[in-house]
Amino acid sequence: MASGIPALDRLVDEFRKMPSVGIKSAERMAFYVLGLNDSEAKSLSESIIDAHKKIHKCSVCSNLTEEETCPVCKNGKRDRSTICVVEDPRDVAAIERTHEYNGLYHVLHGVISPINGIGPDELTIRELIARLSDNTVKEIIMATNPTVEGEATAMYISRLIKPMGISVSRLAYGIPVGADLEYADEVTLSRALEGRREI
Amino acid sequence: MASGIPALDRLVDEFRKMPSVGIKSAERMAFYVLGLNDSEAKSLSESIIDAHKKIHKCSVCSNLTEEETCPVCKNGKRDRSTICVVEDPRDVAAIERTHEYNGLYHVLHGVISPINGIGPDELTIRELIARLSDNTVKEIIMATNPTVEGEATAMYISRLIKPMGISVSRLAYGIPVGADLEYADEVTLSRALEGRREI
Repeated sequence: MASGIPALDRLVDEFRKMPSVGIKSAERMAFYVLGLNDSEAKSLSESIIDAHKKIHKCSVCSNLTEEETCPVCKNGKRDRSTICVVEDPRDVAAIERTHEYNGLYHVLHGVISPINGIGPDELTIRELIARLSDNTVKEIIMATNPTVEGEATAMYISRLIKPMGISVSRLAYGIPVGADLEYADEVTLSRALEGRREI
Repeated sequence: MASGIPALDRLVDEFRKMPSVGIKSAERMAFYVLGLNDSEAKSLSESIIDAHKKIHKCSVCSNLTEEETCPVCKNGKRDRSTICVVEDPRDVAAIERTHEYNGLYHVLHGVISPINGIGPDELTIRELIARLSDNTVKEIIMATNPTVEGEATAMYISRLIKPMGISVSRLAYGIPVGADLEYADEVTLSRALEGRREI
């Protein structure tokens, strides 16, 4: 923005680095900060350092937590025979919101993507395999995103796991609920036909 | 979001308070913070405290600055006989970007708005009048927003200033450059007709 006020420019630059924050939003956010009182500004600043310091990966599933293990892994009522493998901690939150799943999770923290230099070793695949050694787990649900990289990662992991005698499933493809058939893309529609079920 | 991770929830809440940041953006921003390294997180956090501490109002025009007076007021090349009155420091930045204006500014930090409990005393109108006492200023340009409150504030201030023998002008109304006549609202269009100029 080059406002001639270095501290303001720096703040705008910091906000601009955030995902989906453009110059106008960053400016609006910076002016919001200037309008805060001292304790509010301190609270905002501290919450950043605080979250950054306290939150780390769960030692079991790599989901985010403030403690040694995450709330899902700690919960004795969860079904320990099923693990749902997701790309990102936000995906855990999304699946938890359905209240339909009672198993455990495993967060990969990314997908295999040679173009971005991310191979299997950059993900938590080794940790996933280690979790399967005691024969408690009977099913792995691959819930990576339905993208090229997500598919490839799901395939890669399923090939590692299947020889261990554990069943591996993939989330169903199809038309999203509430969508309009007319606007569904061809691939989605053909997958929906392929996966049709008797009613 | 209620992620079960208090530090994360707090951070998301802090971001949600910002203007035009919804729950999804706040979550995305919070995860961005978690992905930063220590020094980046510290830099973001410090820039907030820093901006908040260093930036204050210019002692002359109430624009934002880190020093006693803002860069515009300090600049000896600016025309000291004209003051452009704006609502907000962002308006100063917008006018400066045109490179068409060489006078000084006065930032009101709001508009008269009885419904929000903001009267003339909450704005910097008193400071504006004080600036006119030495007869240097010949023209005041009212550049408040073309809203009901902006208009009322412009009228209020012009009535205070006109008796002092200083000319008061208002930004021109009309169709915005590049806009489509078809989509211009009736008020704007009738103002554009009213303000037509010979070519």
